[in-house]
Amino acid sequence: MPTLVMKFGGTSVATLDRIRRAAKRVGREVANGYDVIVIVSAMAGKTNELVEWVSETSPLFDAREYDAVVSSGENVTAGLMALTLQEMGIPARSWQGWQVPVLTTSAHGAARIVDIPRKNIEEKFAEGMKVAVVAGFQGISPEGRITTLGRGGSDTTAVAFAAAFGAERCDIYTDVDGVYTTDPRICEKARKLDRISFEEMLELASLGAKVLQTRSVELAMRYKVKLRVLSSFEDNDESAGTLVCDEEGIVESRTVSGVAYSRDEAKMTLVSVADRPGIAAAIFGPLADAGVNVDMIVQNVSDHGRTDMTFSCPVDQVARAEHALGEARERGEIGYEELLADTHVAKVSVVGIGMRSHAGVAAQMFKALADEGINIQVITTSEIKISVLIDRKYMELAVQALHDAFELEKVA
Amino acid sequence: MPTLVMKFGGTSVATLDRIRRAAKRVGREVANGYDVIVIVSAMAGKTNELVEWVSETSPLFDAREYDAVVSSGENVTAGLMALTLQEMGIPARSWQGWQVPVLTTSAHGAARIVDIPRKNIEEKFAEGMKVAVVAGFQGISPEGRITTLGRGGSDTTAVAFAAAFGAERCDIYTDVDGVYTTDPRICEKARKLDRISFEEMLELASLGAKVLQTRSVELAMRYKVKLRVLSSFEDNDESAGTLVCDEEGIVESRTVSGVAYSRDEAKMTLVSVADRPGIAAAIFGPLADAGVNVDMIVQNVSDHGRTDMTFSCPVDQVARAEHALGEARERGEIGYEELLADTHVAKVSVVGIGMRSHAGVAAQMFKALADEGINIQVITTSEIKISVLIDRKYMELAVQALHDAFELEKVA
Repeated sequence: MPTLVMKFGGTSVATLDRIRRAAKRVGREVANGYDVIVIVSAMAGKTNELVEWVSETSPLFDAREYDAVVSSGENVTAGLMALTLQEMGIPARSWQGWQVPVLTTSAHGAARIVDIPRKNIEEKFAEGMKVAVVAGFQGISPEGRITTLGRGGSDTTAVAFAAAFGAERCDIYTDVDGVYTTDPRICEKARKLDRISFEEMLELASLGAKVLQTRSVELAMRYKVKLRVLSSFEDNDESAGTLVCDEEGIVESRTVSGVAYSRDEAKMTLVSVADRPGIAAAIFGPLADAGVNVDMIVQNVSDHGRTDMTFSCPVDQVARAEHALGEARERGEIGYEELLADTHVAKVSVVGIGMRSHAGVAAQMFKALADEGINIQVITTSEIKISVLIDRKYMELAVQALHDAFELEKVA
Repeated sequence: MPTLVMKFGGTSVATLDRIRRAAKRVGREVANGYDVIVIVSAMAGKTNELVEWVSETSPLFDAREYDAVVSSGENVTAGLMALTLQEMGIPARSWQGWQVPVLTTSAHGAARIVDIPRKNIEEKFAEGMKVAVVAGFQGISPEGRITTLGRGGSDTTAVAFAAAFGAERCDIYTDVDGVYTTDPRICEKARKLDRISFEEMLELASLGAKVLQTRSVELAMRYKVKLRVLSSFEDNDESAGTLVCDEEGIVESRTVSGVAYSRDEAKMTLVSVADRPGIAAAIFGPLADAGVNVDMIVQNVSDHGRTDMTFSCPVDQVARAEHALGEARERGEIGYEELLADTHVAKVSVVGIGMRSHAGVAAQMFKALADEGINIQVITTSEIKISVLIDRKYMELAVQALHDAFELEKVA
């Protein structure tokens, strides 16, 4: 039997009625001849509630207990989904992470899947079970403790099962009907993409387009899993949603596929640091140790042996960054005149695999922003992405201007 | 180190604040030098919510999936309790049923504990852990599926752990401060008992005094576990609550210890059945097969080879009983003129180990009821209990009259 993986996110299983609707989709794929592995998230809001309880109980919580608590929401939906399928006459059973088992590392709260032995589930398929409903987001450590894969981890569970079972496709059902050229809420011309490459999806995910967990896209790329994102709130056929696939699968030829943005950025500037070898390590070492996710980095040209160092990080890590740098300064590892933090910035990025072979994308981007009078504060680029940090009040305007400039509303 | 088992019911862990209060009690026992095994229920209301979801999803649910779903509430409180203890500086960790493991039968929804290997938890105690927080109510079947022990099952988990670990005592923290001579809500003279025998507690539990799960009392009796019921909402010292113990531990010498009642009774009468050998089996066999819990049985004296057969059962099983008897009649196994169901009855019972050696308790009981003009419809007796079925509207009056008659408000 060919195998299909279907993953339903929190909003798609938020009520018993929605679970029934999701189960009907599963039933259709069973009727199409598939053995189906269903991965479920917790009912929308449940995991947040559990996370809040843990944080309120113990601000610096033991991550093992955090995992034991927050993984429970998925167990509930897995059982309810199995029961719903059984009611429809479809042989199904639920599996918790440790029952499969989903073997992970011991990195509680952000564990990585190491292996998913097929034996237990395959035996049940051989006995006539048609659907294995697996609690997403969770696994078991070598020590026998429950682990979780980080927020959005059920996406990664789904892709890992698709890879382990050689599934024909991994369908991610969510509350949007696919991946868009940009966020439709801030740009009404946004257009759903039929296909997008793994590389582009990775950049979009890491840039804050919260459709898929980054790790799930990495896994799909590595194991060549055909990944589809589609809505659980609409009827959809074979071609619905957005297929995330290899570059070869992309028939459209465009330089830019999408415009992403992130509101939660802060720009920090160390004024007048010594411009000497090792200064970058002296600054960013302590930040890394403190768990600050530094994103963009810019170093001004040197002036009399002093320079300004600017970097961006998530806005909720500013206090942590200030603390880490202050301590490094006290230890005499770095010296600076002043530490400036600007929390009114946003990051806007254009992403596209076509950039690799098309020159002039950056120039076109900068011109589009200049035409709107938007000043660029920091720039970074990768092979398939150009990001700029700008004043947050221009963020929506920038997204719209770039969407227009690259004519993303048109099918290429 | 001596070991103590402390069990906290749903109302005792209903909020984070109550979990903290419970944890403080645990902390005190750790300070007293105990290794503590804490058994927790789900937060009050959580299990009911899960049960409702399951029933709504699948009225004739797969009990294996029911167990997978409804066991999740205990996992949450176990983790939160462990975190709370850690915050207080007490080395603690949570254990889910399968992690201990709590080995049970495969009777999903009403599984029995078969064994609790001590190895895993003892290893952690040896490493310095002071508190093992165990999710109550759940275990693992030989097939590796999650099982539950039936409503109130966390009491049984607690007693089973106390037996397995040779605990000095098993303290059941609940929302009442002990076992009373009768329900204080309907008899204001009700008095808390300092001690009660296992046998009496068993009768009270099975008669509807919902303080402890019946099975937990049976287990405590068999393994001689010192069981104490006390309030988690009051400060209490060594002598607080009610100790459930061996008959030898009872110093009070009274014939009757308590008055119990049950509102949810129905009286059914088969009018004019043939009075022949095997008739009782022909009637009660089909009822047992249909899962009807027949309680009291009375057979009238025979009149011309016909008799009336009366029995009581829970009021919500009347329809099932009627159906089972109707079918037996159609199959020709029994014959009767009429089947009467009276759903306006209640059962009132007096319980006391002293009855064994004191005659006249029944006479005293019947006189007290007669003095109030209460008609007795059915009577049954055991060694330490006399129960009567009466019109439900006299139930409270009967309880008060019996409480007075046996002077239960006085310390013996």
